[in-house]
Amino acid sequence: METRRAEAFSDGVFAVAITVLVFDLLPIGAGIGGGLGHVLLKEWPKYAAYVVSFLTIGIVWLNHHTLMAHLRQVSRIMLVLNLVLMMCVVAVPFPTALVAEHLTEHTGGGTAAAVTYGLVMVAMSVAFSLMWLYLGLHADEVARQPDFQPSVRTTIRFSGGLVAYVVATLVALVSPGGAVALYGAIAVYYLFEHLPDPTAAPAPRPGPRP
Amino acid sequence: METRRAEAFSDGVFAVAITVLVFDLLPIGAGIGGGLGHVLLKEWPKYAAYVVSFLTIGIVWLNHHTLMAHLRQVSRIMLVLNLVLMMCVVAVPFPTALVAEHLTEHTGGGTAAAVTYGLVMVAMSVAFSLMWLYLGLHADEVARQPDFQPSVRTTIRFSGGLVAYVVATLVALVSPGGAVALYGAIAVYYLFEHLPDPTAAPAPRPGPRP
Amino acid sequence: METRRAEAFSDGVFAVAITVLVFDLLPIGAGIGGGLGHVLLKEWPKYAAYVVSFLTIGIVWLNHHTLMAHLRQVSRIMLVLNLVLMMCVVAVPFPTALVAEHLTEHTGGGTAAAVTYGLVMVAMSVAFSLMWLYLGLHADEVARQPDFQPSVRTTIRFSGGLVAYVVATLVALVSPGGAVALYGAIAVYYLFEHLPDPTAAPAPRPGPRP
Amino acid sequence: METRRAEAFSDGVFAVAITVLVFDLLPIGAGIGGGLGHVLLKEWPKYAAYVVSFLTIGIVWLNHHTLMAHLRQVSRIMLVLNLVLMMCVVAVPFPTALVAEHLTEHTGGGTAAAVTYGLVMVAMSVAFSLMWLYLGLHADEVARQPDFQPSVRTTIRFSGGLVAYVVATLVALVSPGGAVALYGAIAVYYLFEHLPDPTAAPAPRPGPRP
Repeated sequence: METRRAEAFSDGVFAVAITVLVFDLLPIGAGIGGGLGHVLLKEWPKYAAYVVSFLTIGIVWLNHHTLMAHLRQVSRIMLVLNLVLMMCVVAVPFPTALVAEHLTEHTGGGTAAAVTYGLVMVAMSVAFSLMWLYLGLHADEVARQPDFQPSVRTTIRFSGGLVAYVVATLVALVSPGGAVALYGAIAVYYLFEHLPDPTAAPAPRPGPRP
Repeated sequence: METRRAEAFSDGVFAVAITVLVFDLLPIGAGIGGGLGHVLLKEWPKYAAYVVSFLTIGIVWLNHHTLMAHLRQVSRIMLVLNLVLMMCVVAVPFPTALVAEHLTEHTGGGTAAAVTYGLVMVAMSVAFSLMWLYLGLHADEVARQPDFQPSVRTTIRFSGGLVAYVVATLVALVSPGGAVALYGAIAVYYLFEHLPDPTAAPAPRPGPRP
Repeated sequence: METRRAEAFSDGVFAVAITVLVFDLLPIGAGIGGGLGHVLLKEWPKYAAYVVSFLTIGIVWLNHHTLMAHLRQVSRIMLVLNLVLMMCVVAVPFPTALVAEHLTEHTGGGTAAAVTYGLVMVAMSVAFSLMWLYLGLHADEVARQPDFQPSVRTTIRFSGGLVAYVVATLVALVSPGGAVALYGAIAVYYLFEHLPDPTAAPAPRPGPRP
Repeated sequence: METRRAEAFSDGVFAVAITVLVFDLLPIGAGIGGGLGHVLLKEWPKYAAYVVSFLTIGIVWLNHHTLMAHLRQVSRIMLVLNLVLMMCVVAVPFPTALVAEHLTEHTGGGTAAAVTYGLVMVAMSVAFSLMWLYLGLHADEVARQPDFQPSVRTTIRFSGGLVAYVVATLVALVSPGGAVALYGAIAVYYLFEHLPDPTAAPAPRPGPRP
């Protein structure tokens, strides 16, 4: 399959999944008579969860674009892996809602919520790493440059993301709040640290146009 | 109509419909005080229904792409059939929610849910088969290759999918759980067994272009 | 503005609005213990409303595509009219939900629901007619063919759609069920009767490629 | 990154966010037995909020298109700023729902709702202004025309929008209704007053094609 339509479909899924996050905010203040201002301030975990998940999906979208830019065509295996990745991306609003509602509870709900969030992140990282691994192993079949090899630096960076999510999920067992702070920190870190973009890299500013 | 815009619209519908599946997960654990971990584990039919329906819509998307790749232009009849197919795809989250909630009930709700799921799958298969049939019968009008004829193998494979869904729907009458397992098995089977892709099939790497 | 991006945005809105219709089906059977099969059958007005609105949005999408195909570029007025049309399209799930819930009531709710449905359809028809009128009056500025003039036949057909929705809305005052049947009949009629497509019209089958 | 895919993703997000506004209308009249007509009329703040927010997102979409049309490529900073803008756009249905429900309350809820609405608008304006500022300061890196400089007129117009939202938010503290009227007025004003479009400006009608 051409990468174009796989990209279009994936972009649509990313756009919808990231927008679904607002459904976590919509019920805030509904059916409240007085004291709306107080209610709005008290719901800060929902805003925090919204921001962390929005940035996270945004970053996966960015990395997904970079990965697709390496592809010449999409094999069936790649499409299946992509579908699994999409399944994780689409699921993100679910653990986000769990964290938003249960983070400040003292009954253990925060732990279950933060662990669930971490498990979805780990699954998403694994799906993405498998796509990247497949690209490296089958470059002759699917990559634009048939001799493409992921650099050691890239591989370390990726493994780093996966390891960070595993660590954060373990942290969630003892400190749900600490884990959510870690999820946010991972998102902010990868917002600026990223994969090399094959479409932008070689000659970004060739001087004045001939 | 050009196939391009029909594809763009259909891709959008697929992307939204597949993302709507998460709305089935969102209410899990809402309003629960303690024991969130236990609740999350108990809701496994929702996760199963999510995965089965996600893969199913994903596969219909893949096959839809393949079908569209055979088209030179889209006739009015084709657009109407495509609209009917989209109507089935968009409806998928509805029987998914039914199965997710009622599968484990002992009051007959599981049967009604699994049968409804099967009927939507059968309707979707019929709509897709009609599009494929129309393509074969009107190849001179709409196909890229005016002498296009669906192969016997492809026709058997399609009929197979339709027959499998009819059988699974009948199974639902006696065993809702067995039927859902069948729906999942059909999805996994078609994930790897698929229509030949006209854009990728004939000559994947013909060496340097002449 | 280029028509390309206006099309992409509109296609996205159409795709999401048409998918939102499923949210009217999602609550069916939720929280029901026994007798799910009976409940599913009793909710036929929801399925009918879903089908009618799905086809209606689908047809507006088709006509929107045809209109856009006449454009060379999109002026600011055109964009504003398009935004008003989108505002009506996005609103369709609202009167659809009203009709789905209240059609079979005996307390006057059916009338209010069917009238609201009709008013949204009338507003949508007016917005579309204004776009078509603008295209005719400013063909030199925005049309592909600077001397484009909508044919008398096309104009009659459009006015016909608008008049039909006004009549159906008036019918809703005395017979909500009759009005919904009319809305469905209008949708089915326009599914096959349609605007000439400028991209398909001139030379559909030029024989074998040279 | 190429601007094409950033545009496609952003267009998707705009399309979904604008459609999510209908979820504010969907519950109207649900579960109401008699007097549906009366209920529908009483809910006018919901329709007003829907129209104001729809036009507002529509305008941001238009301006976003204009900004993207100036870009040759999208830098990482630009993508991060774009993600922040999207985060504000996606959030719009939340304060819209607050205003729609609480505007006519006499308990202070209207103030809290209108202020929240204003704060989201201010955040959105700031994100957009930062993108425009970045474009001006890094034109050699990202702009189509390496010597691109935003005109004084454009800068004033933008600052005007931001200042207007700050003023309207302050008005919300004393008159929620007045603030919402202002939000609507700002939307209508910018519907016709807008950024110069680089793709349409230079030579809109070069006479008959050679």
